[in-house]
Amino acid sequence: MKLSTFRGGVWGVLRVHPAAGPGRRVTGLSPRCLPPVGPPTGRLFLRGAAATTGGGTNPKLASNFGKHSLKEDVPECDRSLREVVQSTREAMVTLLRRNPTIKPVLAIIQADEDDSALEINQKVAGMVGLNITHIYLTKECSEDEIVEEVLKLNEDPGVHGVCLQLPSSVLTSRVANALKPEKDVDGITDLNMGRLVRGDFSKGFVPPVASAVVDLLEKHDAPLEGKTVLLVGSEGPLGFALQCLIEGSGMVALKSQWSSASLQRQVMEANAVVLLGEGDIDVPPTWVRPGAAVIRCEDEMETSAKLGLRYLTAAYRIQNAVRSSSRWLQEQQYRPWQLRSLKLQTLTPVPSDIEISRAQTPKPVTQLAEEIGLLPGELEAYGRNKAKVRLSLLDRLHTQPDGNYVLVAGITPTPLGEGKSTVTIGLVQAFSAHLKLNSFACLRQPSQGPTFGVKGGAAGGGYAQVIPMEEFNLHLTGDIHAITAANNLVAAAVDARMLHEATQSDKALFNRLVPSVNGVRKFSPIQISRLQRLGINKTEPTSLSPQEVSRFVRLDLDPSKITWQRVVDTNDRFLRKITVGQASTEKGQIRETGFDIAVASEIMAILALADSLEDMKNRLARMVVGTSRRGQPVTAEDLGVSGALAVLMKDAIKPTLMQTLEGTPVFVHAGPFANIAHGNSSVLADKLALKLVGRDGFVVTEAGFGADIGMEKFFNIKCRASGLRPNVVVLVATVRALKMHGGGPNVSAGAPLPKEYIEENLSLVADGCRSNLRKQIQIAQLFGVPVVVALNVFKTDTLAEIDLVCQIAKECGASDAVPCHHWSQGGRGSVELAKAVKEAVSRPNNFQFLYNIEMPIVEKIRTIAQKVYGADDIELSPEAKAKVDYYNQQGFGSLPICMAKTHLSLSHMPDKKGAPTGFILPIRDVRASIGAGFIYPLVGTMSTMPGLPTRPCFYDIDLDPVTEEITGLF
Amino acid sequence: MKLSTFRGGVWGVLRVHPAAGPGRRVTGLSPRCLPPVGPPTGRLFLRGAAATTGGGTNPKLASNFGKHSLKEDVPECDRSLREVVQSTREAMVTLLRRNPTIKPVLAIIQADEDDSALEINQKVAGMVGLNITHIYLTKECSEDEIVEEVLKLNEDPGVHGVCLQLPSSVLTSRVANALKPEKDVDGITDLNMGRLVRGDFSKGFVPPVASAVVDLLEKHDAPLEGKTVLLVGSEGPLGFALQCLIEGSGMVALKSQWSSASLQRQVMEANAVVLLGEGDIDVPPTWVRPGAAVIRCEDEMETSAKLGLRYLTAAYRIQNAVRSSSRWLQEQQYRPWQLRSLKLQTLTPVPSDIEISRAQTPKPVTQLAEEIGLLPGELEAYGRNKAKVRLSLLDRLHTQPDGNYVLVAGITPTPLGEGKSTVTIGLVQAFSAHLKLNSFACLRQPSQGPTFGVKGGAAGGGYAQVIPMEEFNLHLTGDIHAITAANNLVAAAVDARMLHEATQSDKALFNRLVPSVNGVRKFSPIQISRLQRLGINKTEPTSLSPQEVSRFVRLDLDPSKITWQRVVDTNDRFLRKITVGQASTEKGQIRETGFDIAVASEIMAILALADSLEDMKNRLARMVVGTSRRGQPVTAEDLGVSGALAVLMKDAIKPTLMQTLEGTPVFVHAGPFANIAHGNSSVLADKLALKLVGRDGFVVTEAGFGADIGMEKFFNIKCRASGLRPNVVVLVATVRALKMHGGGPNVSAGAPLPKEYIEENLSLVADGCRSNLRKQIQIAQLFGVPVVVALNVFKTDTLAEIDLVCQIAKECGASDAVPCHHWSQGGRGSVELAKAVKEAVSRPNNFQFLYNIEMPIVEKIRTIAQKVYGADDIELSPEAKAKVDYYNQQGFGSLPICMAKTHLSLSHMPDKKGAPTGFILPIRDVRASIGAGFIYPLVGTMSTMPGLPTRPCFYDIDLDPVTEEITGLF
Repeated sequence: MKLSTFRGGVWGVLRVHPAAGPGRRVTGLSPRCLPPVGPPTGRLFLRGAAATTGGGTNPKLASNFGKHSLKEDVPECDRSLREVVQSTREAMVTLLRRNPTIKPVLAIIQADEDDSALEINQKVAGMVGLNITHIYLTKECSEDEIVEEVLKLNEDPGVHGVCLQLPSSVLTSRVANALKPEKDVDGITDLNMGRLVRGDFSKGFVPPVASAVVDLLEKHDAPLEGKTVLLVGSEGPLGFALQCLIEGSGMVALKSQWSSASLQRQVMEANAVVLLGEGDIDVPPTWVRPGAAVIRCEDEMETSAKLGLRYLTAAYRIQNAVRSSSRWLQEQQYRPWQLRSLKLQTLTPVPSDIEISRAQTPKPVTQLAEEIGLLPGELEAYGRNKAKVRLSLLDRLHTQPDGNYVLVAGITPTPLGEGKSTVTIGLVQAFSAHLKLNSFACLRQPSQGPTFGVKGGAAGGGYAQVIPMEEFNLHLTGDIHAITAANNLVAAAVDARMLHEATQSDKALFNRLVPSVNGVRKFSPIQISRLQRLGINKTEPTSLSPQEVSRFVRLDLDPSKITWQRVVDTNDRFLRKITVGQASTEKGQIRETGFDIAVASEIMAILALADSLEDMKNRLARMVVGTSRRGQPVTAEDLGVSGALAVLMKDAIKPTLMQTLEGTPVFVHAGPFANIAHGNSSVLADKLALKLVGRDGFVVTEAGFGADIGMEKFFNIKCRASGLRPNVVVLVATVRALKMHGGGPNVSAGAPLPKEYIEENLSLVADGCRSNLRKQIQIAQLFGVPVVVALNVFKTDTLAEIDLVCQIAKECGASDAVPCHHWSQGGRGSVELAKAVKEAVSRPNNFQFLYNIEMPIVEKIRTIAQKVYGADDIELSPEAKAKVDYYNQQGFGSLPICMAKTHLSLSHMPDKKGAPTGFILPIRDVRASIGAGFIYPLVGTMSTMPGLPTRPCFYDIDLDPVTEEITGLF
Repeated sequence: MKLSTFRGGVWGVLRVHPAAGPGRRVTGLSPRCLPPVGPPTGRLFLRGAAATTGGGTNPKLASNFGKHSLKEDVPECDRSLREVVQSTREAMVTLLRRNPTIKPVLAIIQADEDDSALEINQKVAGMVGLNITHIYLTKECSEDEIVEEVLKLNEDPGVHGVCLQLPSSVLTSRVANALKPEKDVDGITDLNMGRLVRGDFSKGFVPPVASAVVDLLEKHDAPLEGKTVLLVGSEGPLGFALQCLIEGSGMVALKSQWSSASLQRQVMEANAVVLLGEGDIDVPPTWVRPGAAVIRCEDEMETSAKLGLRYLTAAYRIQNAVRSSSRWLQEQQYRPWQLRSLKLQTLTPVPSDIEISRAQTPKPVTQLAEEIGLLPGELEAYGRNKAKVRLSLLDRLHTQPDGNYVLVAGITPTPLGEGKSTVTIGLVQAFSAHLKLNSFACLRQPSQGPTFGVKGGAAGGGYAQVIPMEEFNLHLTGDIHAITAANNLVAAAVDARMLHEATQSDKALFNRLVPSVNGVRKFSPIQISRLQRLGINKTEPTSLSPQEVSRFVRLDLDPSKITWQRVVDTNDRFLRKITVGQASTEKGQIRETGFDIAVASEIMAILALADSLEDMKNRLARMVVGTSRRGQPVTAEDLGVSGALAVLMKDAIKPTLMQTLEGTPVFVHAGPFANIAHGNSSVLADKLALKLVGRDGFVVTEAGFGADIGMEKFFNIKCRASGLRPNVVVLVATVRALKMHGGGPNVSAGAPLPKEYIEENLSLVADGCRSNLRKQIQIAQLFGVPVVVALNVFKTDTLAEIDLVCQIAKECGASDAVPCHHWSQGGRGSVELAKAVKEAVSRPNNFQFLYNIEMPIVEKIRTIAQKVYGADDIELSPEAKAKVDYYNQQGFGSLPICMAKTHLSLSHMPDKKGAPTGFILPIRDVRASIGAGFIYPLVGTMSTMPGLPTRPCFYDIDLDPVTEEITGLF
């Protein structure tokens, strides 16, 4: 490109648009072309100013200007250059102020040895402080090789703009369009060309040559309105780009061809002439109207002494690159949601869950992710409907304030469950799809075992579901499978190690554990950790004394004190108690042990409580698998297996994104037991969601069992681990459960409901409200958090019953109490609840823990029993007392308490409904999950392995091999 | 839009472009705008023809033409319409000839109640035979609602074009660009606009209005070259589209504004005038040059009596929709690969496998999939690097011929393995990345257990690997986890059923198995299947006699004859033999059983052999879990669990796509044991790959163990199940293994290699070649398939040794024998092998099975023992004999044989190297996998559960919590 002829000297109008960020300059466009984001606040540079700065022309540049032009003829080019550089430099400063670590980079792919273009780009980039990465390809490089480089740069997060300095013979459409449009600072992709034609300057890039030419025209010809510009030889995209800009600035663009017979006349009539391509003829100065500018653009690849336009073009390219960095940075910021909810057409009577789920087509998860402000790189899709979300999101949005944090808990349930999951899902459907307030549901991943046993799925129900429900209920993204693999690797390591210790000498063990590899013996990092725990501060294997070798090689596990069980994600009751090691290869090392269902694994509790990969890894290492014969705890790290566990769990730590029936986002992540563990979904899912919903949004998370268990653990264990503070508790009640607490007959699964539950009975309802509901509200208030009661309405409930519940709930201290109809109506049926929750988050909130973590274990247990359950006192069995002493002695005394108690009563006696008093809570045993980080006292017997009934669900589950549709999932 | 003034009558030039498919017409474009695909073969319609057809004007249309125009003024419009309709109809006929089932559909979204546009579109569509789907939205509909409809149509494979008949106020950039460009038949998306500007007509769509206007101009003004067209009020995309087309046809486009002072002069000078938008003034006829056309385009939404241009526009829209259908159909066809291989920079010495793997950035799997002709809908991505491929591909490409089918087998290996996987991967790297021949590797998924035990990973090694190797070796896409879940559900069902049968009466069992739900009792489909197998042809539960009830409810499993084991994917030796059911809840129903490693499950063998979802489901149902006390086999379907198994396995049946270090495609799918099962990757992966590589491509699949086992089973079991026929066998040998067979000392894992293996020893090599290698070549020849010997070169091998192996191999009947250096050089090191394989597939191939499937079981075993192993005879234990009788009696006699024999010798004695003779093969026991479909005689003891050594691999495996990098995976 060269500036061949350029006369005259009028300053143009530079418009600075506020939406473009400080210093960002959109040149040559009339305001109507700009996105409508407020009135322009432009500065005007007028002719007078130009006169005084005219002498400041950079002589280095000016000396290179075109042959027809005298130095005094070309100040526009130089002035424009200075202005563009100046505004770009300002944009750069702003950018660095916003993020001092950002390092904007323009990559240039070049396929010849002419470095003149590179030099110009580098000079201008240097003035601005932009970095240039330069990729040389040989002249003979293939299209494939260029595309490969382009794709690499596309993926490189450190590169914000790409310029293809290629001969037109290899700059094919395939090459150009391989480039990501958001890095296409030369505006050569079809998409950016289309955006230019449509006048959308918010996303694409204007080709820098076109910007440069129009800038010069503006300088020369202002006011522009109605002036004509003749474009000669302007075929192809560049011609159209120029034309777009020229017309956008109010001028009239005329196009002509080099071969046109009337070229002379056209030139003579034009206010300015732009010559493109290579005409055979030169345009003699005599053709040109006095005062008219003539700008000649040649192939930028050509070496040319006419550098003015090339410099200006480079400046606009650099400006585009800085703009691209700025957009990239903008994209990294929190972005308001553009959630498109899915319409729900509810039917009466309400069809089966799977029919409802299947009738709704979920949005592609990539689209949902985009709507809620996730970046493509933060997503790992698992098929079309599920995706894992990377934890890097927390870094990206770490300055973003959290949204409101809502816990859904329940009153003491009947054995049928009272619908906390459906309330949770209905509530976010109401928030996001009906009130247009950002919200996220955080749910537990269900165990797969019960899907085929009795319980059925856990994706909600009716018109408040996570979809597709079959994917929710089956493998999901494999987290539970990963837990199974990790848990059982520990178990295999325990038994194998005991066998090897039983059958080998210290020396043999040491030789095997620290083998000589190519003549070198060294400890692995995990072994050095063990040595340090043993107080052996040596790193040279040969320097260990025989006693030290013995202590190092022998975990000396006491077979009767191994607490680690194996797991499967199947309801396999025959594995509850087994004897292993009966094959002759195990040399008689038999012992009794058992399998739990996978979600009962301590690793599940760790997954739920970890707040980073590192935290998870450390917790996995700390897990205690048993006790040595000398009474020392033996950990997963002692077994050498903790690194492998972290590897097995590295994907499981990322929450899985799904959606509700109304297309609102849901995280499904972790599902620990609610008795021997804390029964809450993961800390990380909550944290990610709180960032994503933004300051005014809502994250609704669910706690298992009744509020006396799930909520208490949510506060004392989960919130302690996460540092998060809840804003409001939603307490789910049903008329059915309230009647039971009011003295109604027994409710049991499988049996028909007694008539008290089908007919109106206000007195049972009132008694239930004044006992269990009141008590559960009071428990929430112990923690200083406002409570909204959500009455999950069943079709048998009467208006009078519903009104009565709401009235008493408010009398008992609830901020509000509202009936919810999400099951039959979806989010629409929970709008009142959402409004009540929104109102409640503005209430005073004096969150506090129930107990100080440093209190003695027994005192912590007593506090929970008395204040939460209403017990008079606790009573520890001798075994429990011994365990408490042991844990204190091992330094585990300051862990929080995770009560393993029935959920069917506030007391330990499942048949005591309402709000029992006057009982002593018996503590049968005390156990510990050291990795997860809690002590769990056992109040009664907890089953950790469900069984299959005579006719399990699986009898009805089937797959159509043609449509791939699943039937029979309830 | 209306045709307001239109005079004159000259036929234009229609160019028919051969690349566009028969009948496809690109209007108004000069050849240089078209993709360069051969010379145009256009037909010319000349003036003379027009004169004779002028009278044929459709009076129905003509009567509606504009107010200024007389009937005789407008024949162009009508003629053009007829021509466009005619050519579109022809395109439609061609389309339906190519695929009679295709039903092209244009969807129109309309947001008002004016149906005139719809009527016109429908009329024209009716003339062509195109279907129109019409979506009405209310005038008040939101942008979100429109976008939702657009996205639905984007996803709908039955809709090929979408037209947005919306007021410009709601046709925002967001709405327009929500549309998939490939369905954007009105050319309104930015991308299609950009394509038009660039002149790329092969992918996008030209706005129909623009086509219609230019068509009329052409008719009127031919020859067009140099004529001027004045576009008045032509701002915005439509103006640019028109201008592109006008300039493309050789005319000069001038633009003016309604407000221009010189409008009159410009109109007077133009050869034609196109009026766009709504000017305040009318252009009086007196301004118009005699003979010049004036075309007025108004908002298509407006009701207007001036229908001519609207009809023509509709015709071009319909043409675009048919073209879109045609492109869609084209896309469904086999597409040649555009594989972009990854450059490999090899280092010396060769770094560790994980270092090599990590140094290479894999292509995004979506991109790899596109390169090899997969459609986006056929892919289910699992993160960035892995994706499952849907089986629907087989339907789409069912007419596509298969590629060449290459089996990689090996000579009898040392315990260290001889590198079949690396040869397989190196070979496809050579084919695809160096010879540019399509190829696919089909590999087994490794068990996760050994990854943490002794063996390490199985992703190949050195510069012949599948990447990322850690994803290959860990959870992959969860297939083995699904197998574990399915296998263990069967096991849980077995024990639970035995418990329930032991503790309940017939009546109680029947009431539970066929419960009354809302007063209705009925059998599930799976129960009806069981009734039919029992010969009880009743479907009404109450109609069963007590005897029938008893037979139905009691599987009556004999606890001592349960063959179904549980599985875990962990090396857990203590589970080899266990006692289950020891908890009091299981009421004393204890029994001995055991766990196998997951890949030993029969379900894995089924996954590997199934050739459709239906086939898999049937095989799962047929699996025999044990024998009743009356000696009848009891199946998974009898347990009622087979539908649930299919549900658990529905994703596992889809092969997983990954890539090699050089970016060539790999399927990873299924990994059954090579002793108790057939040791080959899946039939489905091979079938998908054979379609994808195309007729001249190569699918390289690997068989476990030596050729005597893996290859024999590949032919007799896998090929029998798949119906596929191999073209060539690659037999992998190493100098190391040959020296061992030639009489070299013992080789064992962990111990240093004796010097014979490090120094040149031609006599050992020669003896090994003339014994084991010769025999293995002969075995392949038994099946009539050509053999290429691949010598996997180690750095200790001497040139003389290498030459000797190749020479003797050819003497022994190999088609060719070549050394391979893939481990140190990647694909480049296997180019000679690839050439040899390519040559060998052209050799005569007389594939035949070794035995007739209907031969008696014992005869089949004897045939394998004698012909393959070189045994004199076989000898069955009494137990084996009894089993054979039992299987014959149960009708399982005509299944193929799957020998469970050591892989370390051709005989049953692992220490007999070379080619042993003179031995009797002892058959200790005979078992059956009825679902998988084979009988497996046991020759010796097979371990189906590996153990952990004293220092398992996991000691070195670790995860960096910051970089997420894994270390220690060898």
